[in-house]
Amino acid sequence: MPLVVDHDARRRQVAEVTAQLIAKAGIEAVTVREVAQAAGYSTAVVSHYFENKNHLMLHTYRATVLRAHRRMEAALEAGGGDLLDYLAALLPADADRRRDWLVWFAFWTVAVADPVFSTEQRTRARQAVVRLADLLRRRGVGKEAARAGARHLLTLIYGIAVQAAFDPEEWPPHAQIDPIRAELRRVLEESGL
Amino acid sequence: MPLVVDHDARRRQVAEVTAQLIAKAGIEAVTVREVAQAAGYSTAVVSHYFENKNHLMLHTYRATVLRAHRRMEAALEAGGGDLLDYLAALLPADADRRRDWLVWFAFWTVAVADPVFSTEQRTRARQAVVRLADLLRRRGVGKEAARAGARHLLTLIYGIAVQAAFDPEEWPPHAQIDPIRAELRRVLEESGL
Repeated sequence: MPLVVDHDARRRQVAEVTAQLIAKAGIEAVTVREVAQAAGYSTAVVSHYFENKNHLMLHTYRATVLRAHRRMEAALEAGGGDLLDYLAALLPADADRRRDWLVWFAFWTVAVADPVFSTEQRTRARQAVVRLADLLRRRGVGKEAARAGARHLLTLIYGIAVQAAFDPEEWPPHAQIDPIRAELRRVLEESGL
Repeated sequence: MPLVVDHDARRRQVAEVTAQLIAKAGIEAVTVREVAQAAGYSTAVVSHYFENKNHLMLHTYRATVLRAHRRMEAALEAGGGDLLDYLAALLPADADRRRDWLVWFAFWTVAVADPVFSTEQRTRARQAVVRLADLLRRRGVGKEAARAGARHLLTLIYGIAVQAAFDPEEWPPHAQIDPIRAELRRVLEESGL
């Protein structure tokens, strides 16, 4: 029987290991060699999947964004469509989600000097607004109010995340979610919902 | 006549050059040698002021925070005590202030792995809340409301800054300041002011 290799699973595993290393030490400090070692592969195997460090990094960034996206959509479904569950799933209120934010901070720094990463970052941020505005519209919020509300809610989440990641003492989970709950209520109430 | 060297001015100049280089390429990419070259000194002169790269970086971080602080206080005074002027002076609505935010992003990444930087970051963020809460109290806002309002306003500023720095097209100056104006008005109105 031939050995069947699940290439997608390997790619996912390598991206996961890379994200862990980035969250600990930043992008500059991470090498393909180190990733390979931590994932239990030879450098050649990792290089087979990712042409160079830049490709590996871009893939890792996309994998963390996709993971967060899936987590939010799963929370939305599990909560019967509750938008607060959806938004809460993005907050750095547990170790896993804090890890994602630390990875994103690291990428922002790269994005300053790298147009590929800055385009990626901009696109993902805009997509998040579009998706949330769409969810608000389905709840009955008007078009303009949905867009403004989505922007405001995500702005709050960014603002909370960048503080909470470095100061969990000042920002325990309830301190992260309370302002989001209040703002979501306000957006819905302003539309008479 | 002996040559009089203004050591403080030199330190400031070196920190300024370092901040410019960090904003362009990130902390990892910056070397003491490169800083010296860009500032027009020998590496020995820079090393005379800063024991190592870490010291230079910590000094640069503090210098950018101090600069932003001074800019905000000056805006407050120039605006006759208008808190919106004070807060607007922190938004990345011009090249200079965007530069400061890019430097801070770079330091957040370092702070993940470095307790000295994470303590510094945490302390500065907390001080900003205390100062703003104090200014709100002077405007007549009650103690609890002032603290909550200060936290919320600064959270919005963080959230706006991290998006605006990478997407100036979606976040022109008025899009940055409008939510702050609305929130400040709300904080004051809720206290009957």
